[in-house]
Amino acid sequence: MSKKIPTRLYLAEDEIPSSWFNLRAFMKDKPDPLLHPGTLKPVTEDDLAPVFCKEAIKQELDETTPFIAIPEGLQTFYRAYRPAPLVRAYFLEKALETPAEIYYKFEGTNTSGSHKLNSAAAQAYFAKEEGLASLTTETGAGQWGSAMAMACAFYGLGLTVYMVKISSEQKPYRKALIETYGAHLIPSPSNTTEAGKKILAVDPNTAGSLGCAISEAVEAAVKTGKCRYVLGSVLNHVLLHQSIIGQEVKAAFDKYDVKPDVIIGCAGGGSNLGGLIAPFMGDRLAGKNNIRFIAVEPASCPSFTRGKYAYDFGDTAKTTPLIKMYTLGNGFIPSSNHAGGLRYHGMNSTLSKLYHDGHLEARAEAQTEVFDAAVRFAKAEGILPAPESSHAIKAAIDEALECKRTNEKKVILFGLTGTGYFDMSAYMAYNAKTMTDYIPTDDDLEKTGFASLPKVDL
Amino acid sequence: MSKKIPTRLYLAEDEIPSSWFNLRAFMKDKPDPLLHPGTLKPVTEDDLAPVFCKEAIKQELDETTPFIAIPEGLQTFYRAYRPAPLVRAYFLEKALETPAEIYYKFEGTNTSGSHKLNSAAAQAYFAKEEGLASLTTETGAGQWGSAMAMACAFYGLGLTVYMVKISSEQKPYRKALIETYGAHLIPSPSNTTEAGKKILAVDPNTAGSLGCAISEAVEAAVKTGKCRYVLGSVLNHVLLHQSIIGQEVKAAFDKYDVKPDVIIGCAGGGSNLGGLIAPFMGDRLAGKNNIRFIAVEPASCPSFTRGKYAYDFGDTAKTTPLIKMYTLGNGFIPSSNHAGGLRYHGMNSTLSKLYHDGHLEARAEAQTEVFDAAVRFAKAEGILPAPESSHAIKAAIDEALECKRTNEKKVILFGLTGTGYFDMSAYMAYNAKTMTDYIPTDDDLEKTGFASLPKVDL
Repeated sequence: MSKKIPTRLYLAEDEIPSSWFNLRAFMKDKPDPLLHPGTLKPVTEDDLAPVFCKEAIKQELDETTPFIAIPEGLQTFYRAYRPAPLVRAYFLEKALETPAEIYYKFEGTNTSGSHKLNSAAAQAYFAKEEGLASLTTETGAGQWGSAMAMACAFYGLGLTVYMVKISSEQKPYRKALIETYGAHLIPSPSNTTEAGKKILAVDPNTAGSLGCAISEAVEAAVKTGKCRYVLGSVLNHVLLHQSIIGQEVKAAFDKYDVKPDVIIGCAGGGSNLGGLIAPFMGDRLAGKNNIRFIAVEPASCPSFTRGKYAYDFGDTAKTTPLIKMYTLGNGFIPSSNHAGGLRYHGMNSTLSKLYHDGHLEARAEAQTEVFDAAVRFAKAEGILPAPESSHAIKAAIDEALECKRTNEKKVILFGLTGTGYFDMSAYMAYNAKTMTDYIPTDDDLEKTGFASLPKVDL
Repeated sequence: MSKKIPTRLYLAEDEIPSSWFNLRAFMKDKPDPLLHPGTLKPVTEDDLAPVFCKEAIKQELDETTPFIAIPEGLQTFYRAYRPAPLVRAYFLEKALETPAEIYYKFEGTNTSGSHKLNSAAAQAYFAKEEGLASLTTETGAGQWGSAMAMACAFYGLGLTVYMVKISSEQKPYRKALIETYGAHLIPSPSNTTEAGKKILAVDPNTAGSLGCAISEAVEAAVKTGKCRYVLGSVLNHVLLHQSIIGQEVKAAFDKYDVKPDVIIGCAGGGSNLGGLIAPFMGDRLAGKNNIRFIAVEPASCPSFTRGKYAYDFGDTAKTTPLIKMYTLGNGFIPSSNHAGGLRYHGMNSTLSKLYHDGHLEARAEAQTEVFDAAVRFAKAEGILPAPESSHAIKAAIDEALECKRTNEKKVILFGLTGTGYFDMSAYMAYNAKTMTDYIPTDDDLEKTGFASLPKVDL
């Protein structure tokens, strides 16, 4: 008999997990390694040293340590906004008239508005410990840039953010938030880097892309020698930091004897999904549960569901290591009518491997239906969700309605990664019924995406 | 010996107070009654019946019941976003190098972005129970309109929001949020009411004011006969609902043996301040503590510090009952360079009485210094505060710095009423150093404000 479940399943401060969960250590079949693009050999710490912080590199290459301690100085920062609420969606359940139990982990109560702060804080902390004075990064929809700006303000680090140009224009308030926290923001592509200049030479009016902003931020970090680059998704050390999400959920579920049947997360580069599912997937791989894991991606940027499982670059300028992942090709840019994030061409390598091996399902959802779900959720549960998070809401509602049809009392958990307060222009379009969907044709994918895949012979 | 204080002093769900604290019941010297503007006699339930919901009227006129139970159906709604975090500001203390202990009650984790939802939920709940189908209200900066839109969406009520015209233009995203929750939004003044038409006839290009929007919303409610009007501040039933804030703080402080020396709240109409201080002020009036209570208002709209203690109308069209309060006169409109809320000409009657009798201090702060404090707080504690809340932050920082000077280990509590995510244009002006201050001259106050006070002979 399970305990009475409160609306919010809080953990006390001393119940916040003090270590990260390194999912790769629990996988017998490891994801394929990062390759040096010149030698096509697995990258070494030395290869990555000019770009990333030391501790990030160590974590990126660590496939064996199951639990990695969260330093006490970082735990102090986490306590300013964690534990994140784990909510029983009683109101949504009632609105859907479903027998299912629905829970969501809400990562949007901090000012950056999303889960991104979990890794931003970690990366800023390690940079500070290493003695660095400044960092560079990129941001698309702006959640990661906001999170890094907050973390750098807290730890007293300089920060330059290359923000995808169209986003910086469409989201002046997001830009203002980043600048209020003291970061230097440059719309990308820019004339401050060779990568930016090259792209501008081809198309001076380009809207920019995440892949291009990454190229600029990496170049800016490397050329000074005293600065390092930080990334908010895709890489395994980022997923490691995000495992605080799943670790907290598991601690709270264990406290209240809740056993999830389905876990759902939105997926762009994979940071939230990977963090949310980590300890539960670890148990699944050990045969301890039979949970279904569902990744939900935009139909406009369908890397899992329509991408190729191949080695590809992480950026447009083809300067990063090669990553084995589900990818649409580094040249793929989602249509500009796509709102919010989840616009990255590839997917984290660990999640890609799990998907390839059948441990993870994936589905792609059209934008207008995602916003239908968002508004339905907002009216029932109060919280106005981020467009990204709303992909998971859409799938959770669909699963709950399926339970209604079959009269099954499943336990559904989804990740509510953030709030939509800086995405109101998308909600305005939705309210005005001017929002459109875009689903690339096979031809689109071939020409703009797959054609850009590196021709590597492994 | 006090217990170790965590960063966030959470209450469990079953520790959320189940009753409101009716401060007037604890006052020997009651505030002066509302007067009917025609008869100049204290208003009766019947006088108010065409305008307000029945339960709101009952609560408005109840000066004797000390604790008023929060209905179970409303407690269910509260549990969706409460308890609100009570945070020990360890990082701010460290940044200020103060021996003081600083705490803040953070009401901004819900989507409306502020404490306003506490009364919006209550008023929507009572309207639903009464069998009403729709409500009208006004909003200035937009927090109240957002909160009512959320509450009405939840309880399935129609809502028309008269939004001060200049706010609806300056804050398109705030407007979009209100509309996303399904409310009908009309920029005020409008041609939909006689009050609006009159004001437009005099000045078709007026920016609008809260007093004018109130007139329109009241008229719209009364003329249908089937609709009622709801107000987000100033009145005593609103303060009653907001006492959930102070009740929660007191429950958490008692749990951790914390005894505040100073309690600070920003003050516009008084809803947050009154709610925050209620149980502590009750104890003070009973001789059980000697806490200092500080109201902080904008120097641009200084009703406590420069207003008159007099009977005045609550609205510009002079249709409401007369309220004995500190007021700048119902014709007073703050300069348009004033950002955010706290722009009401008057002040709640209970707080006015307490201030008049010396139980409450007040100070007025200039806008640019308030934003200095806001950004300082944001960088230390992570949360980007609302301009309104930042008035309290300014005073809390000043008190903490005074403790540093005198080496006193005082316990300071302030109300962090909300977030600034829909006030980014103000932060942009601050970042660009184009933000200006406005402090009305005595002559300004005489001509635009005091001249509008009713000439009543009591």
